[in-house]
Amino acid sequence: MIHYVGVATLKSLLHNIGIENFILKLVQYLEDDFAAWHSFEKSARVAAHSSSGVIELMPISNAEFYGFKYVNGHPANTQKGLPTVMAFGALAAVETGLPVLLSEMTILTALRTAATSAMTAKLLTIPKNKTHALIGCGAQSEFQALAMKAVLGLTDLRVFDIDNAATQKLLSNLQNHGFTLTACTSVEQCIEGASVITTATAAKTRAKILTKDMVKAGTHINGIGGDCPDKTELEKELLDKCTLIAVEFEPQSRIEGETQQNTNLPVVELAHLLKHPHNHKDTDITLFDSVGFALEDFSALRLIYDLVKNDQNYKLDLIATPQNPKDLFSMINLLVS
Amino acid sequence: MIHYVGVATLKSLLHNIGIENFILKLVQYLEDDFAAWHSFEKSARVAAHSSSGVIELMPISNAEFYGFKYVNGHPANTQKGLPTVMAFGALAAVETGLPVLLSEMTILTALRTAATSAMTAKLLTIPKNKTHALIGCGAQSEFQALAMKAVLGLTDLRVFDIDNAATQKLLSNLQNHGFTLTACTSVEQCIEGASVITTATAAKTRAKILTKDMVKAGTHINGIGGDCPDKTELEKELLDKCTLIAVEFEPQSRIEGETQQNTNLPVVELAHLLKHPHNHKDTDITLFDSVGFALEDFSALRLIYDLVKNDQNYKLDLIATPQNPKDLFSMINLLVS
Repeated sequence: MIHYVGVATLKSLLHNIGIENFILKLVQYLEDDFAAWHSFEKSARVAAHSSSGVIELMPISNAEFYGFKYVNGHPANTQKGLPTVMAFGALAAVETGLPVLLSEMTILTALRTAATSAMTAKLLTIPKNKTHALIGCGAQSEFQALAMKAVLGLTDLRVFDIDNAATQKLLSNLQNHGFTLTACTSVEQCIEGASVITTATAAKTRAKILTKDMVKAGTHINGIGGDCPDKTELEKELLDKCTLIAVEFEPQSRIEGETQQNTNLPVVELAHLLKHPHNHKDTDITLFDSVGFALEDFSALRLIYDLVKNDQNYKLDLIATPQNPKDLFSMINLLVS
Repeated sequence: MIHYVGVATLKSLLHNIGIENFILKLVQYLEDDFAAWHSFEKSARVAAHSSSGVIELMPISNAEFYGFKYVNGHPANTQKGLPTVMAFGALAAVETGLPVLLSEMTILTALRTAATSAMTAKLLTIPKNKTHALIGCGAQSEFQALAMKAVLGLTDLRVFDIDNAATQKLLSNLQNHGFTLTACTSVEQCIEGASVITTATAAKTRAKILTKDMVKAGTHINGIGGDCPDKTELEKELLDKCTLIAVEFEPQSRIEGETQQNTNLPVVELAHLLKHPHNHKDTDITLFDSVGFALEDFSALRLIYDLVKNDQNYKLDLIATPQNPKDLFSMINLLVS
């Protein structure tokens, strides 16, 4: 029997641990895995493209575990009442190939993206106050807010979205989570005085949500919306102004991230940053050019597995393991005398 | 909610339909999919190798469905009480990327391998009698026997294995399935008078289970054990003697199949055979050089999905589908006022 964590079980796990505490644990797992960066076999993702979208398998492994994620991207899904992105994944023992965990990953991906953002923000900045400006109140937004609160103590949350319904949704979702919430009417108003600015917008275009003149010294930018070719959020000149740009995996970020706008800009990978900490100055403008990487899914699956592996509930008969390996047939034989 | 077919549900489905009837249905699905061969996007499998084995993801898609299989290969697993090969898979809608089925595939792979063998035997031979010689009584054997019975009416089953316990297991498993069973003490005795000879041995070596002089005209050889580099079952000169060698996908079979021994031998792909039927002669010796292909998994997943898609049981909350796509967080929010 394989361990299974569906949506209901994930909710129950988060209820028992607390969402912010879960994120803190996940940050530890991410730090451990990114620090062991060179011990991973980082396979290419396998994509199947169609006229309506893409379906990908993202495998990654180290000496102990093999993990993969199934994830789709279908922009027109929202018109059909479905999420644009859905995901699930599995973890297996490398030694035997035995799958040990199957998990939902639509929600888990949002959690790991937020945890990676907060881990990186902690590496790149010392917040001058408790203000987090969050631009874009979509599916990722609440997770980002809670991660920045859990890791950096950013409890003053200023939010903006061109879709007022999205803003109201966020305000409603986060009203009892210990934030001081301010809904803003423009990006300029939103980022006023913020230590950390998160851009998490959805439009697949070369947007300029933030420009060079808008961002003051001493700010960390957590750019998570620019995550595929021709989808960026920051003005090119703002990138030039950054003291340090952190990325997950340089070859991927040069294609998918903000740095696709200027491939000559120096970037630093998270694995390097964890071993060679950045010396923060008050005049810095730092950027995390987040695109999402398979290692983050691996860390999330590892945490989930550690949380459920000793629990006898949540099991699934996905893998047939006959007592006699040569006798698979008896598992379905209906006519035993 | 996604449909889920685990080991228990598969057994119950097979109980309701009958194993042989399930195989007959699967042969129809295989014929349909192999006939539509050129409509499939046949991606390369992605393999992660370790010192103890390999873990692979095998994706394939057409305009309607995307399917993939997770499968491992760990030769030393039997010493740990685990199967060498374990598998599971999923089917998703290409239009939306929404996964619709998760299924065990360890048993399903044995069923699809057997159904493919029987489908091919039907294309390549007209049995002169009801005798099927089965060499190798491992995990695949009973499935092969039932498929050849269901499709070709081969009820006289002669079996041989160097491991007597394996032979006894097969005799016990198949005793109430309508066969006349004969356990043999040598390959030579086993193949005596057989219309179809199945070789399904496990040794990872260049074996010569069958040689040129052993096989008589009018025989179809169903070679399923030779399925990876340096693992073959047939003498090279026997291949030269064959009237027709059928393969699933030539580029793969030239590396993994019996034909790796002589890459100049002409082979015919199943998709071609379905459109251009072979004119059987009594003097033929035909061979199916089976290695297993992702399309067969796809057909099996399609059949399973058709069998359960209108059933409200067997559902799993693997995929988070929030009512408002921008409101993923409310699926796990514990503090709604």
